Amino acid sequence: MLKFLNNRRTIRKYKEQDVDNGLIEKLLEAAGRASTTGNMQLYSVVVTKDEAKKAELAPTHFNQPTFKNAPVVLTFCADYNRFNKWCEENEAVPGYDNFLSFLTAAIDTLLVAQTFCIAAESEGLGICYLGTTTYNADKISDILNLPDYVVPVTTITLGYPDEAPELTDRIKVGGWVHYEEYKDYDSADIKRVFGYKDEMEENKKFIAENGKKTLAQVFTDVRYKKADNEFFSEAFINLLKKKGFLK
Amino acid sequence: MLKFLNNRRTIRKYKEQDVDNGLIEKLLEAAGRASTTGNMQLYSVVVTKDEAKKAELAPTHFNQPTFKNAPVVLTFCADYNRFNKWCEENEAVPGYDNFLSFLTAAIDTLLVAQTFCIAAESEGLGICYLGTTTYNADKISDILNLPDYVVPVTTITLGYPDEAPELTDRIKVGGWVHYEEYKDYDSADIKRVFGYKDEMEENKKFIAENGKKTLAQVFTDVRYKKADNEFFSEAFINLLKKKGFLK
Repeated sequence: MLKFLNNRRTIRKYKEQDVDNGLIEKLLEAAGRASTTGNMQLYSVVVTKDEAKKAELAPTHFNQPTFKNAPVVLTFCADYNRFNKWCEENEAVPGYDNFLSFLTAAIDTLLVAQTFCIAAESEGLGICYLGTTTYNADKISDILNLPDYVVPVTTITLGYPDEAPELTDRIKVGGWVHYEEYKDYDSADIKRVFGYKDEMEENKKFIAENGKKTLAQVFTDVRYKKADNEFFSEAFINLLKKKGFLK
Repeated sequence: MLKFLNNRRTIRKYKEQDVDNGLIEKLLEAAGRASTTGNMQLYSVVVTKDEAKKAELAPTHFNQPTFKNAPVVLTFCADYNRFNKWCEENEAVPGYDNFLSFLTAAIDTLLVAQTFCIAAESEGLGICYLGTTTYNADKISDILNLPDYVVPVTTITLGYPDEAPELTDRIKVGGWVHYEEYKDYDSADIKRVFGYKDEMEENKKFIAENGKKTLAQVFTDVRYKKADNEFFSEAFINLLKKKGFLK
């Protein structure tokens, strides 16, 4: 299993081949064995295969080729709606209209999403997470017709791999594990943890392509900009309010 | 793999046997292959084995026997601190002092946490997630000495299993998968999805023990109460502000 996990790759290019709904449900069933808070299973998954629906969703994922090219898209949603309805049908008054409950449901949802991915990869499928989900969760919510207490948390594209990419780099475990207490990073630590990235040819190329001086500047000035982060923060907070998770 | 995932159990009772740090780091290494936003790896893990440190943490997890009994505890933290420092060391101005960035880091963190659990289980270890982490994240943060831009998201207890519990129930995939659009649940759907729970002997016993009329009331009136959720919501939001993720 460790060898399998250590060799996984995110797949962004898929064969045209469909993924059978029976297989998707089998993978979801295994994913559903992940730990869940109080066995409440506070998630729902919306499977998108229909071309018209995909075309509606595409702009919310910035029309990424990965999205457009994928035969299947799964939107994993934090869902207290179903549980609340169960409470109401059973003479109980739910008290989940608050931020903690959103967080609880989001955690449940992400454990299922990741277990789904590992299950899918073990069956020869490839996946890619779309971070755009939290950017445009409000628009995705409208398109997928999500009711109150249901918020998209992440999206996965799924299909049979049509590429075999190299393993991407990772900082070493020593760079992110702490024993007993968090030991903050000084200048030398940062160099020790991240330094190897500066030496990578592909990063040098990436910096040049973006007309920047350092790799970090590509992140702060091009890929994940403050103004965008603030704009999408506000949109997500407004969605939490609209869906009933924040006053 | 599916068989393995379908048969996993949460383990709450552990042998006294230590878990070797070398093995923990091997598992973390495999976990670190999980997808991560822009390869930023926005997480840190604090490993707790020291009895004094465990005793400090125990009340934040309500002194659960699972916590006290575990030889190892891992606190998984959303971490923008390391990345921010890297930016600052590289002539870049980080713009991650906002809610979206917390959410991004929390997602990264949970994918790693869940991959770690699957890796650990595949090596014969047992795990239990502690939902108390988001309740007392502020106190945990103080005890683990977490700096700004680092917030605990989940905790896992780890050890060699000293119990062999039954599989817990799950609602069927048909109860939480939707095709193309979310189909909201009516009264009959709720009965179809959750109805089996009412028939379970252990649930009938659980309802009686708690002096309630329905299982849902045990959740709303005993286990996950509105007043508690609101109290812990405020604490977590305050922590996000304190750590720099919310204005």
